[in-house]
Amino acid sequence: MHRPRLSLLVASLLLASGIAGATPPVTTIPGTAVKTAERLRDKALHDDTGYRIVTSLTTEVGPRLAGSDADQRGRDWAIAKFKALGFDKVYTEPVTYPLWVRRSEHGAIVAPFPQALVLSALGYSAGTPKGGLTAQVVRFDSLDALKAAAPAAVKGKIVYIGYRMQRAKDGHDYGMGSAVRVTGPAIAASKGAAGYLLRSAGTDAHQRIAHTGVTDFEDPARAIPAAALSNPDADQLERILAMGKPVTVKLDLDCGVVGEYTGANVIGEITGRKYPDQVVAIGGHLDSWDPGTGAIDDGAGVAIAMAAGKLIGDLPRRPDRTIRVIAFANEEMGLWGGRAYAAKHADEVTKFQLGTESDFGAGPVWRMSASVKPGARDAIGQIAGVLAPLGVTYDVSKPGGGGSDLSQMHGKGMAALSLTQDGTHYFDWHHTSNDTLDKIDPKELAQNVAVYAAFSYMAAQADGDFGSATGAFAGDGAGE
Amino acid sequence: MHRPRLSLLVASLLLASGIAGATPPVTTIPGTAVKTAERLRDKALHDDTGYRIVTSLTTEVGPRLAGSDADQRGRDWAIAKFKALGFDKVYTEPVTYPLWVRRSEHGAIVAPFPQALVLSALGYSAGTPKGGLTAQVVRFDSLDALKAAAPAAVKGKIVYIGYRMQRAKDGHDYGMGSAVRVTGPAIAASKGAAGYLLRSAGTDAHQRIAHTGVTDFEDPARAIPAAALSNPDADQLERILAMGKPVTVKLDLDCGVVGEYTGANVIGEITGRKYPDQVVAIGGHLDSWDPGTGAIDDGAGVAIAMAAGKLIGDLPRRPDRTIRVIAFANEEMGLWGGRAYAAKHADEVTKFQLGTESDFGAGPVWRMSASVKPGARDAIGQIAGVLAPLGVTYDVSKPGGGGSDLSQMHGKGMAALSLTQDGTHYFDWHHTSNDTLDKIDPKELAQNVAVYAAFSYMAAQADGDFGSATGAFAGDGAGE
Repeated sequence: MHRPRLSLLVASLLLASGIAGATPPVTTIPGTAVKTAERLRDKALHDDTGYRIVTSLTTEVGPRLAGSDADQRGRDWAIAKFKALGFDKVYTEPVTYPLWVRRSEHGAIVAPFPQALVLSALGYSAGTPKGGLTAQVVRFDSLDALKAAAPAAVKGKIVYIGYRMQRAKDGHDYGMGSAVRVTGPAIAASKGAAGYLLRSAGTDAHQRIAHTGVTDFEDPARAIPAAALSNPDADQLERILAMGKPVTVKLDLDCGVVGEYTGANVIGEITGRKYPDQVVAIGGHLDSWDPGTGAIDDGAGVAIAMAAGKLIGDLPRRPDRTIRVIAFANEEMGLWGGRAYAAKHADEVTKFQLGTESDFGAGPVWRMSASVKPGARDAIGQIAGVLAPLGVTYDVSKPGGGGSDLSQMHGKGMAALSLTQDGTHYFDWHHTSNDTLDKIDPKELAQNVAVYAAFSYMAAQADGDFGSATGAFAGDGAGE
Repeated sequence: MHRPRLSLLVASLLLASGIAGATPPVTTIPGTAVKTAERLRDKALHDDTGYRIVTSLTTEVGPRLAGSDADQRGRDWAIAKFKALGFDKVYTEPVTYPLWVRRSEHGAIVAPFPQALVLSALGYSAGTPKGGLTAQVVRFDSLDALKAAAPAAVKGKIVYIGYRMQRAKDGHDYGMGSAVRVTGPAIAASKGAAGYLLRSAGTDAHQRIAHTGVTDFEDPARAIPAAALSNPDADQLERILAMGKPVTVKLDLDCGVVGEYTGANVIGEITGRKYPDQVVAIGGHLDSWDPGTGAIDDGAGVAIAMAAGKLIGDLPRRPDRTIRVIAFANEEMGLWGGRAYAAKHADEVTKFQLGTESDFGAGPVWRMSASVKPGARDAIGQIAGVLAPLGVTYDVSKPGGGGSDLSQMHGKGMAALSLTQDGTHYFDWHHTSNDTLDKIDPKELAQNVAVYAAFSYMAAQADGDFGSATGAFAGDGAGE
C-alpha cells in the first residue's frame, strides 16, 4: 500500500509542471497508515518526550531574545537536541534581521502622585534620552481615537491607550490588543508624540507584570520610546488621569536597534523513505521574549514538533515522505525566520505536502481546519477521524493558516492546516516574565504531540498530495 | 441608659487604683447601644467610605516604605484624611527606627545556565559589594537542616531554602514561611554564608513576583545579602540544582541601613462624651513594603479603622468612650510603631477599654476571639451576637491577640480581640508588587468596617470594662 498510485505519480508530474487543474480528484490515506497513526497518537499521549524537551530548553537555555547571547545557545541546543532525538539530518539556514537590545527599563508617575510604574519596553522601541523622557500623558480611548486626533493634541506628549483585552478560547481579542501595541506607536510618532504607553495586551487583569511585544517601527529613525504597562499599573494611571489634573510620567528606557544580526532557522528531518524531497513541515519558533523563559511561546511549539518527529522516527521504518521540523529564528520581532524560510523555499512549494506550526501555547488542540485542494478533503477527513478521540473538531468552514512562521510558506502556496489550541489562559502569560515552564500541563502538551505526530505521519503516507502549488492559497488564511 | 451604673463607677475607681480583683463580675452592653451597633453594622455594609479611603491612600500616596519620601506623604495624607472625616482630635507620636533603603536589586544564575532571576531583597538585607556577589549555592531542605549544618558546608556560599508555603484561610503556614525568611538569614550568616536566598514566603505558585519582608538582622554589622526568589524562579533554581552540577549565582543588591529615621504614628480620635480618657483602640499600619502600593497590607486596615471611626463619628452624638484610630508607623520592619506606642502608653493601660488592629488584608472577618476578664465574657457574647449576621463566629477557645502593632499594647495588659479575616489569598499578594487596590473587594472591605464599627461602638458604650490591667494578659496571645 505504500506504492504510489499511478494517479499520484501523474499528478505529481503535472503539479511539478504547474498544471494544477490536472491533480487527481481524491487523495487518500492508506488504511495501514491510519492504523499506524492511531498507534502513534495513543503512544504520544503517554509519552513525556515533549515535556522533557521544553523543560530542557527553558531550563538550560532560558530566555532567548533574538540576537542575544542566548540566541546562539538556543541554536546550539536545538542542533544537539535534534541529533540526540535521532533526526537523520540537522542543519541551519541563516536569518538576518535588525538587532534590538533591551538593557534596562524604568517608568514612574512624576506628578501629581509620584510612584513607580511596572512597564516593559516594546520591541523596536527607541530608548529615551539619557536621564529619561518626562512628559505629560494624553489618553485616548481607542486606536481609532488616536488616529482621529489632531497632531496638536499629541505633540510632545506621551500617548496612552487603555484597551482591555478579554479572555477567549481562540484568543481572538488579541486582534485588537496587538493592533494597539503594534500599530499605535507609529501612529503616535507620526503625530509628534514623545512616547507611547499602552495597557498590556494581556488578560491577567491583576498581575503587576507587563506584556512586551513587537511594534511596527520598521524605520528605527522614526521610532519613539514605547512601552506596555501592567494591567494594575494601567488601572492606577487611569484613576489618576480621571481626577482631571495633568499627569506627568517619566520613561527611562535603555533599548534600541544597534545593528544587524544573523541567526538561523534550525532544521531537523526524519528523512522520507520513498520521497525524501517531499516534506511535511511542522515547527515552532526558537526565539522568545526576554522577560520569561519562552515556555508557552514558543518552547512548547518547538517541543511539540520535535517530539512528534522523534516519535515518527522511532517507528520501525521511515515514513514515505520527510518530516521536517523547523525551529524558526526571530518570530517575535516580525516573522523573520518564517519570511526568510519562505523566500528561500518558495520555488519548492510543490514539494511541501502539508504544513503547520504550533505557536499558541501548550493548551490542547480543539479545532482543526485546512486549506487544501478539494480532492484532499477526504484525506483531511481521515486525519480528522484519527484526531477526533483527542477532542479535536474538524471545522470545514475555516481555512488552514499554517501557524505563524509557516503562514509565510502557506502564502507561497503550501497546503496548510490550522490546529487551534485552547488559548483561554495564553494571554495571561504571553510575552511576560510569567512565560515559564510551570504554565505547561504535561498531559496537555502530550495531547499536542499526539495531534502533530498523527497528522504528520498520515500526510507523509498519503496516496496523493494536498494541493500545494505556487499561489494556490494566497490570501486564504495566510498570515493569520 | 447612658448613665453609668454605680457598679461601673466603683469598678472604674478601683481599676484606676490598681485593685483589679475588685472589678465587677459582669460587664454588659446596654440594649440601646446594641440597637445602635446593629444600625451602624447595617449602614456600614452599604457604605463605601472604607473603599474610598484605601483608594485614596494607594492612589495618591502609593507605596509607603518606612522612612522613604512617601512615608512623610503618607503621614500628611493620614492627618488630612482624619480631619476630612470629621475626627475630633488628630495628632502624631514620633517613632524612631533604623532607616533601610532599597535602591536596586538584580540576581542571575551565572553557571551552568546563565539567566536572570526575579528576586527581592529582604528588609535589613546588606547590600552586595560593588560588582555583585558571585558564589556557589548550597541548598537546605528546611530551616532545621540549615541549623544543623556544619559551618564548613555553608561558609562563603549562598544558602538557599525552598520551603513551599501552602494556602490556608487562617494563613497559618506563614508561621513556617516567615520563619525561613526572618530567622534564616542570620543563621546562615552566623555560619559564614556569603548570602541567603529563599523561595518566597508566598502562595502564588505561578507568579514571577518575589515576596519581600523583614529579617532579624538586628545588628546591621552582621547582615549579609538576603533576598527572596519568586516561586517560578525557585522552581528553576531547584531544577538546575537537581542536575547535580555546581550552581553559581550572582546577587547584585544595592540596599542597606543608612542611619536612623523618625517617623510617627498618626492618630485620630472620636472623643468620648462621658469618658474621654477611656479609649477603644483600633487601627492599621500606614507603612507598606515598596514594590506594591500597600493595599491589602495595610491600606485596608487603615481604611477599615478610619471608616469605622468615621461612621461612629457620624452618629447623632459622641460615644461614651473615645474611639482612637491609630495608623501605625513602620510595622513592616519590626512593629516599630506598635512597640513605640506600647512603650509610651503602658502606664495608661487601664484606660484602654478594648482594642484590636486590622492587618491581614481585606477578606471578610469570619472569626472573633477575645482576651478579656471573665466578667466581660457576656459583653463579648453580646458583641458576637451583633457580628454573627456578618458571618463572624465567636470562638471562645482562643485568645484575642490585638493584631500586629496592638499586640504590643495587649502585652502590656490591654483587653484585646482577634478579628480573623479570610486570608486564603492574602499570601498570594502579601509583600509584593501585586499588593494593589484591585485585590480588594469593596463589599468584603465594607463587611470589615461593619465589624469594626459595631464592636468599637459597643465596647465604647459598655457598662463596665473588659479587664485591661498591667500584665493581666501578658503572654495570652500577645504578639500573635
